[in-house]
Amino acid sequence: MLSPDRSIASKDIVAAVADVLSRIRARSPRVHCITNVVAQNFSANMLLAVGAIPSMTIAPDEVGEFVTRADSLLINLGTFDAERRKAAGTAIDSISQRGRPWLLDPVFVERSQPRTQFAKSLLAKKPAAIRLNRPEFAALAGVECDDTALAKFSDSYNTVVGLTGETDVVTGAGRQVRIANGHPLMTKVTAMGCAGGALVGACLAVENDAWLASVSGLLILGVAGEIAAEKASGPGSLAVGILDAVYALDTATLIARARLA
Amino acid sequence: MLSPDRSIASKDIVAAVADVLSRIRARSPRVHCITNVVAQNFSANMLLAVGAIPSMTIAPDEVGEFVTRADSLLINLGTFDAERRKAAGTAIDSISQRGRPWLLDPVFVERSQPRTQFAKSLLAKKPAAIRLNRPEFAALAGVECDDTALAKFSDSYNTVVGLTGETDVVTGAGRQVRIANGHPLMTKVTAMGCAGGALVGACLAVENDAWLASVSGLLILGVAGEIAAEKASGPGSLAVGILDAVYALDTATLIARARLA
Amino acid sequence: MLSPDRSIASKDIVAAVADVLSRIRARSPRVHCITNVVAQNFSANMLLAVGAIPSMTIAPDEVGEFVTRADSLLINLGTFDAERRKAAGTAIDSISQRGRPWLLDPVFVERSQPRTQFAKSLLAKKPAAIRLNRPEFAALAGVECDDTALAKFSDSYNTVVGLTGETDVVTGAGRQVRIANGHPLMTKVTAMGCAGGALVGACLAVENDAWLASVSGLLILGVAGEIAAEKASGPGSLAVGILDAVYALDTATLIARARLA
Repeated sequence: MLSPDRSIASKDIVAAVADVLSRIRARSPRVHCITNVVAQNFSANMLLAVGAIPSMTIAPDEVGEFVTRADSLLINLGTFDAERRKAAGTAIDSISQRGRPWLLDPVFVERSQPRTQFAKSLLAKKPAAIRLNRPEFAALAGVECDDTALAKFSDSYNTVVGLTGETDVVTGAGRQVRIANGHPLMTKVTAMGCAGGALVGACLAVENDAWLASVSGLLILGVAGEIAAEKASGPGSLAVGILDAVYALDTATLIARARLA
Repeated sequence: MLSPDRSIASKDIVAAVADVLSRIRARSPRVHCITNVVAQNFSANMLLAVGAIPSMTIAPDEVGEFVTRADSLLINLGTFDAERRKAAGTAIDSISQRGRPWLLDPVFVERSQPRTQFAKSLLAKKPAAIRLNRPEFAALAGVECDDTALAKFSDSYNTVVGLTGETDVVTGAGRQVRIANGHPLMTKVTAMGCAGGALVGACLAVENDAWLASVSGLLILGVAGEIAAEKASGPGSLAVGILDAVYALDTATLIARARLA
Repeated sequence: MLSPDRSIASKDIVAAVADVLSRIRARSPRVHCITNVVAQNFSANMLLAVGAIPSMTIAPDEVGEFVTRADSLLINLGTFDAERRKAAGTAIDSISQRGRPWLLDPVFVERSQPRTQFAKSLLAKKPAAIRLNRPEFAALAGVECDDTALAKFSDSYNTVVGLTGETDVVTGAGRQVRIANGHPLMTKVTAMGCAGGALVGACLAVENDAWLASVSGLLILGVAGEIAAEKASGPGSLAVGILDAVYALDTATLIARARLA
């Protein structure tokens, strides 16, 4: 759809994102999530709000069977127990055998060595996309985060990097876009980044271009977050309102609000 | 109270449900829940909203002691780890020895064989009631879901089946009622069905007639869901509003809104 | 700051609490929580709302490394599995070696013997403060709860006891204060007490006087709960509103609303 060898106008990207969103709603894809305990409820609600169907089991004797019916897979390292690590391996193998994409969200890899090592081992299993913030990137890539490092990392691992922060930066296969949507209050809601990862997972389920899927998930989160922040009295009502805003998001709003560069 | 051998007028059922609700509020029964990680917080809040007292431990060396003081027990299979399976056995034995009822909520049994087998093994332990949806019933009963299958299954296992969906159907001991309350937006909130199971668990704690308890729990959820949906801007505010609506629910509202057939 | 050997005027305490709150916001301290599954999301959101940064891992091979960078530690016994018990020991040793404080929240110790025994074993590891309710105190102290028992217990273990209930009572090092803020609807939200413990944990991270830190956390929760209850339609909107109220809380509001005796 979007070829890597030409510059893409922002408005074309937004139109493509709107199309991804409409396909999620039309197809109700299944997204299996191996994610952290704090994020599970909010991520499941985010997936339902956007139109996908979440499943969350990590039990070793059934995760493979669940993933067999999933359209994409999210691996979030925020809870890092032995069972989840084992389930992650099984789930990635299962989704990869069917040629379906998976997303790595290496939450807090900069905080512990075992987590860094595990995240690096997962890179070898070829995630279609990665969602992380600046300190997490530095820990995973072993270098400070700048555009050159992002491009090099993305090329080395043949993946798309969705870097989240005040401005999100999505880098992959020679393309890069900055998303200036979102609101500072979003940082005061736990698992907001994890929910963004879940949205990228939903987009990957219906869009083969992992770069466009990553842009879609993060733009949907950013625009919905802005809308919710305008009405919110604080982080409690923001967390509620962003689910409402994702659910109600339409093409006109995406076009009116997207700030890509 | 309600004899199985005569037709019961809808308005008598609603009056009986209102009475169950008032008893929950008067007695603050304890409901022990072995439920899935995604549902735990929302189910606990739903139980508190209706007037019950939840407990949620699954630790093998204390679950028996917790259940000893519980008035009813909920077994929800949405998280299916080894510890929960073991805890379920201990808890069911403990509640059954005291002649108190327990509810089976076999979430996603249609998705994995180990879960189906475990759910079937629990049927032998005589749940007072079961809460499930159509695909879950088909997996558990081994036949497609229709009124005949529901009646046969309910008779075979001497239990009450609370089938949830666009219209809920509660079947047991020769009685059947359809509940046409609820709202489509409820399907966009994770663990809404699990919270319905928790409400049935609270009703079982104060009402020995498991059929009436099942009708009560599902009618309370459906009416509260409708009220919340009328005010909600999306699934986020619905999840908040349904807790408020359950908390505020009164007899007049139940009578005005119940749609039984 | 507050010497134990003189009576402190309520308004001085409130001013000191406001100062603690401003330091949390200025420093964004890290609070590591080993807490129960039901409380994790709400506690993390409460910590973010007040201005702290939560982490929640319990994995044995990384909890030590996380705690190495934490400014305080919360141990909540609401989920009582083997992994958490082990993680609690590791985390307490790690935080204590660095001379940083930790809080014990012995949820439901009165409900099971293994939990009581474990909580007692943790007392020997010298928590800076304890947050519990009346039945939990009775189980832990082995005597009914009154002012004499509170003072004796606090002296014996050289700790501060933050007793929560209709009126909170904070006792330690010869000081005692009653906090009459809060609202009955707060008891209808699951993990509200745990979130109060998390707030005390945040206060301990910036205030060495554990008595003042305990008063601060419980006063912030009580005042925010009152504000939220005035606007809430029930327990669902209260849980949302209290996060907004904690986030927005300012010195003038604390002074206007604090009811200390």
